[in-house]
Amino acid sequence: MDMLGSTVNAIAAIREEWYVVAQKRLDNLTKPLGSLGRLEEFARRLVAITENKSPILDKKVVFTFAGDHGVTEEGVSAYPKEVTPQMVLNFVRGGAGINVLARHAGSEVVVVDIGVDYDFGELEGLLHMKAVRGTRNFTKGPAMTREEALKCIETGITLAEGYTRKGYKIFGTGDMGIGNTTPSSAIAAVLTGSPVAAVTGKGTGISDASLKQKVKTIEKGIKVNAPDPKDALDVLSKVGGAEIGGIAGLILGAAANRVPIVIDGLISTAGALIAYTIEPKVSDYLFAAHNSVEIGHKAMLDKMGLQPILDLNLRLGEGTGAALAMLMIEAGLKIYREMATFGEAGVSDEIIN
Amino acid sequence: MDMLGSTVNAIAAIREEWYVVAQKRLDNLTKPLGSLGRLEEFARRLVAITENKSPILDKKVVFTFAGDHGVTEEGVSAYPKEVTPQMVLNFVRGGAGINVLARHAGSEVVVVDIGVDYDFGELEGLLHMKAVRGTRNFTKGPAMTREEALKCIETGITLAEGYTRKGYKIFGTGDMGIGNTTPSSAIAAVLTGSPVAAVTGKGTGISDASLKQKVKTIEKGIKVNAPDPKDALDVLSKVGGAEIGGIAGLILGAAANRVPIVIDGLISTAGALIAYTIEPKVSDYLFAAHNSVEIGHKAMLDKMGLQPILDLNLRLGEGTGAALAMLMIEAGLKIYREMATFGEAGVSDEIIN
Repeated sequence: MDMLGSTVNAIAAIREEWYVVAQKRLDNLTKPLGSLGRLEEFARRLVAITENKSPILDKKVVFTFAGDHGVTEEGVSAYPKEVTPQMVLNFVRGGAGINVLARHAGSEVVVVDIGVDYDFGELEGLLHMKAVRGTRNFTKGPAMTREEALKCIETGITLAEGYTRKGYKIFGTGDMGIGNTTPSSAIAAVLTGSPVAAVTGKGTGISDASLKQKVKTIEKGIKVNAPDPKDALDVLSKVGGAEIGGIAGLILGAAANRVPIVIDGLISTAGALIAYTIEPKVSDYLFAAHNSVEIGHKAMLDKMGLQPILDLNLRLGEGTGAALAMLMIEAGLKIYREMATFGEAGVSDEIIN
Repeated sequence: MDMLGSTVNAIAAIREEWYVVAQKRLDNLTKPLGSLGRLEEFARRLVAITENKSPILDKKVVFTFAGDHGVTEEGVSAYPKEVTPQMVLNFVRGGAGINVLARHAGSEVVVVDIGVDYDFGELEGLLHMKAVRGTRNFTKGPAMTREEALKCIETGITLAEGYTRKGYKIFGTGDMGIGNTTPSSAIAAVLTGSPVAAVTGKGTGISDASLKQKVKTIEKGIKVNAPDPKDALDVLSKVGGAEIGGIAGLILGAAANRVPIVIDGLISTAGALIAYTIEPKVSDYLFAAHNSVEIGHKAMLDKMGLQPILDLNLRLGEGTGAALAMLMIEAGLKIYREMATFGEAGVSDEIIN
């Protein structure tokens, strides 16, 4: 069987009995029942995902996938596309937002060139896994061939397999690619069935006039390519992007290996929705990091039944929200592992009314 | 001048020019303008509060104030009042939720007996600062004398002064006291002008019938004592609690010393509203940690113009939400201090549309 097929076959739904195992311990800790709210949910989910009564998150990693987008020719971004490789260099040197927040969260950052339209040479600290050298302008035809799109997904799966073997216990997703809110909103429109204008925002900060142009560009791309919403690979190849495909593959590979995975904002969630369309069981393994300012984000989270952890008006991408959310997920796990029980602490658990 | 008067006199409003100084640096970092949302707000506020272009948060501390409440005689809590000293022992031994989450946030925990109805003897690791040995049942008269209430506030101010001198850079507030959502909701009703039923919740988890009894108890306490909403000390003494007074004093002392202070949930916010009623400028120094499940919380935050940082369905208290929120505030500061500028990173800051 091919890599994608065998990965999808390996994805199993969470077994509810593990939630019960975890909640039993949570209910015996020195606090009123349920009083730590979503922290308890995070702990339950980690136990069920890993099928481990006492999981740990000692090795964490955020994958920041970078790619370029031919559709930037249409004037959909506030920044020139040269910024994609410039920011990749910034990531590798440790100066970007994701570097700062991953350090804060005790997570590593892995930077992946999956589709940048630039030759980095032998740059150390960058994973050279180009599946395509920038996508094509999707208003004039498919952004990628089906084979290129598949290669992006396989790249993500390969990374998930490799980092699982290296002992990483939780993954975060991130992206860099000037123009990439455009393919993300296109995917959101196709896969949620929403009108393009309802899922398209200002990205890095374009004007009202440019937003209108961006909506028209996406509408044109969908009309020209007619992606099939039942065929995620078709959608990814026609109106997607390389980094979105890499994220989708990483998610499929994480789920197949029972590794929890934290998805960042709009672009990562478009990747998640590609993965979810291939295999809906992936949602059991996903944590939605935050509620992005980008309006297409919520429609995609709703489609997958995910509730964001943070709401801090972020719209940077790179995996910054995922790194921050890891801190909350780990807080839930520490509560589960480290708090004293009523018996240990000699605290009365008698409830009097 | 007395301690409270001189502390209040030392509280100055934030100077807007510091926000401008901070935002100028934030806007020069390698990210789209404003794209880190509230993280940028946290950094701006820390700069303005400390009047320091490059503040650090190397020493953090959460103060967990413990006190008992005579009003528990009325059956307002799900737990017996013996749990207050039992939980104090749990804090001192490091097994409670606040110990786990403060460790996660890199913060110390200081446990203060400001009003527990129990003799702890020489217990190490506990600050023995009893202002009252449990409050009196406020359905039968004032919970405390005005002198006792003032002593609670002075205790908080003393701690703020001492820990500022020891070099702590940010404070969190927390509470322990079986029954203490009852005085907190009473304070919320009196100081926001809301009906008691609109600001009273189920605390640690009482039944619907007990909730009705709790509302009636608070209504009776307000009727019997007629606290003056313009006189915060009158409100604190008549329907408040010792730990709430300690938190109010800590906030006043923090503001007087330009120390940022993170307030936890319902009980801490009742303390903050006491401090705010004494001197509204304290709100410039406050960070609201989270949106508690307790319904009275939001009315008090709105009154002070504060927007919560997290929304994780927490209702434990102890300072748990404050510890978690410190992680987000510190994330904002690290972005401000550690991210590369466009110039440093060689990234184009040209905006093309």
